[in-house]
Amino acid sequence: MRMIARCWQVRTQRPIAYDVIESPHLFDPANAALLAFGRPGGRRFVVVDAEVARHYGTTIRAFFDRHRIEARSAVFPGGEEHKSIEAWQDILRALDAFPIHRRDEPIIAIGGGVLTDVVAYAAASYRRGVPHLKVPTTLMGYIDAALGIKAGVSFNGNKNRLGCFEPPLAVLLDKSFLRTLPRRHLLNGVCEIIKLAIVRDAGLFAALEAHAVASVDERFQNTAGDAILDAAIGGMLEELAPNLYEEELARKVDFGHTFSYGLEARHAHRLLHGEAVLLDILVSVAIAERRGLLAARDVLRVFALVEELDMGLDGGLLDGAAMWRSLIDRVEHRNGLQRVPLPAGIGDCIFVNDISRAELDAALSALRTRIRMNHEPALER
Amino acid sequence: MRMIARCWQVRTQRPIAYDVIESPHLFDPANAALLAFGRPGGRRFVVVDAEVARHYGTTIRAFFDRHRIEARSAVFPGGEEHKSIEAWQDILRALDAFPIHRRDEPIIAIGGGVLTDVVAYAAASYRRGVPHLKVPTTLMGYIDAALGIKAGVSFNGNKNRLGCFEPPLAVLLDKSFLRTLPRRHLLNGVCEIIKLAIVRDAGLFAALEAHAVASVDERFQNTAGDAILDAAIGGMLEELAPNLYEEELARKVDFGHTFSYGLEARHAHRLLHGEAVLLDILVSVAIAERRGLLAARDVLRVFALVEELDMGLDGGLLDGAAMWRSLIDRVEHRNGLQRVPLPAGIGDCIFVNDISRAELDAALSALRTRIRMNHEPALER
Repeated sequence: MRMIARCWQVRTQRPIAYDVIESPHLFDPANAALLAFGRPGGRRFVVVDAEVARHYGTTIRAFFDRHRIEARSAVFPGGEEHKSIEAWQDILRALDAFPIHRRDEPIIAIGGGVLTDVVAYAAASYRRGVPHLKVPTTLMGYIDAALGIKAGVSFNGNKNRLGCFEPPLAVLLDKSFLRTLPRRHLLNGVCEIIKLAIVRDAGLFAALEAHAVASVDERFQNTAGDAILDAAIGGMLEELAPNLYEEELARKVDFGHTFSYGLEARHAHRLLHGEAVLLDILVSVAIAERRGLLAARDVLRVFALVEELDMGLDGGLLDGAAMWRSLIDRVEHRNGLQRVPLPAGIGDCIFVNDISRAELDAALSALRTRIRMNHEPALER
Repeated sequence: MRMIARCWQVRTQRPIAYDVIESPHLFDPANAALLAFGRPGGRRFVVVDAEVARHYGTTIRAFFDRHRIEARSAVFPGGEEHKSIEAWQDILRALDAFPIHRRDEPIIAIGGGVLTDVVAYAAASYRRGVPHLKVPTTLMGYIDAALGIKAGVSFNGNKNRLGCFEPPLAVLLDKSFLRTLPRRHLLNGVCEIIKLAIVRDAGLFAALEAHAVASVDERFQNTAGDAILDAAIGGMLEELAPNLYEEELARKVDFGHTFSYGLEARHAHRLLHGEAVLLDILVSVAIAERRGLLAARDVLRVFALVEELDMGLDGGLLDGAAMWRSLIDRVEHRNGLQRVPLPAGIGDCIFVNDISRAELDAALSALRTRIRMNHEPALER
């Protein structure tokens, strides 16, 4: 039987290019960094996180007024519960009521990781993609969520189940937003820095040991905090840039992102993303210790750092069944293999495919004992 | 003021590659063309158009059973009214209930242009993109909708307002599906072939004049019909392939796709996509004639072809206000310029940016007179 009568081949290369730019005092009228993108005199659809609008709404409006830019501001709440199809549609309807050119009038997202993820997904979806700029205002956004090209929302009870890879026009970083960030949300971002340090950067881990507490106290406006942020951003981009579309499914940055999905779904109103990641990190550290990948002294360093930062860890939130289901879903996501990153000493990692439910449960027991020793369960915050 | 403190550059190339494969009798158990994609023994989520399922459901099921493939079939209705966020979510929920690997268990879409557009958008969105195969079963899908990488749904009353560019793993063409396609839906696809012929292929236009009627009668199972299909597919891909992501916004294939959006929105239940495109083509031909771009004899050839095919044109559906609003929206879509393709002789086209409301209205008057002369208004079909 002649199976193929005729065949046309479509082949092309799509260039991807964007810059991550540190620009202090981004909304100072004298700073034109944001205006370098898009048509001069063009319109701008600006989505601002509700908390950010409360602190900086007047400053942001004054900036666009001062530069005579026709900007339509839409204020949307952040927080994981708003990472939804409904929020995405609300943004799209607001956008559809404000005509913008498809190519040279970028959407501007100003907010935390949830807001920039949802707005990036709205921009990616509108007319099959209009350009967008990301201005992260939380530490989580600043060193993690806003740097890459992942966009999306949660769906059907599964975190980030829908989305796309959408490169921004640029990411603009202004750490002065961190001045008004609540301590819990600063620590939320620190969890991702700890993640990166453990699996790829022993120097960053040492810097955290030396300066994390002071940097959190000073909301990263200090010199040591600056060095930590730069190392975190540079390290994250070194991991992301060669693998933007996740052709390689074994990713160091997935450390702490295997069991955490189940915990986030299970405790949606009690755990921030970074807090769930930290619990996953500690379980993974316990697994690594039991496998002889991490020496006892390295395990102690990890727990000492977490202890010193007073993260308010609640071991009562660990849930073996939810975490195991989460791993099973990750196997589909990672195309048939677990590909779980485990630290191999501090500053390096390996990937394993053979974690069993019994091994997870044993690590959880060890972890529960250790957290109980260190901490009374945190009260509902 | 120091505007840029530090800058990281992200640069990469994303390779795009897919084949459009003519494979007659695709679901004959002896034909393995469809099995060349994805992991042998893997699962397949198959979305089938309800009309196609009625005619070929048993054949399709038998094919997967025969090859011992664990396939989950979901049947969804086609038709523009189902090109919606709701249909997209329904498909995504069904998909989320059937675990598939993220990379080597492709989704298979079997249906018309609406179904393949919506399923491609669901595949693009699920876990930020899982692979999909398209099997078009209508002429519109076969020579147009399924060939490119556009995916999406209508939103907020605007056709195709949400979506993305998502390359398929492959497009598999089997024209035996056309045997059961109703005549009106065959003509729906012929409108897009006429479009392509007028703006880029005088030879194809001559072939239509000579063989379109017979080919429609024989549901394109004839040799002349084959040649028309191959020329249409080849021509479409020559236009699409160098401009997959529409970097160039002046596109010949947008001929007939400027005023038609307004007509489709206005007469959602009365006009098929190709019928709206044909009305747009004829208005554009009238504009081109008044501008001296098309000679009277070429205009006559266009109308004679349409007449001969007995398209059931209803001039009463022309609506100047809706068509003008549609052009204004296209200006946003085409980034600030009209970029309206107009035929320049048969087989070539130019792009214009200066159509006025008065010019549109004058062309509409001329067209109404001509259609009225040729046709009594069609009854509601």
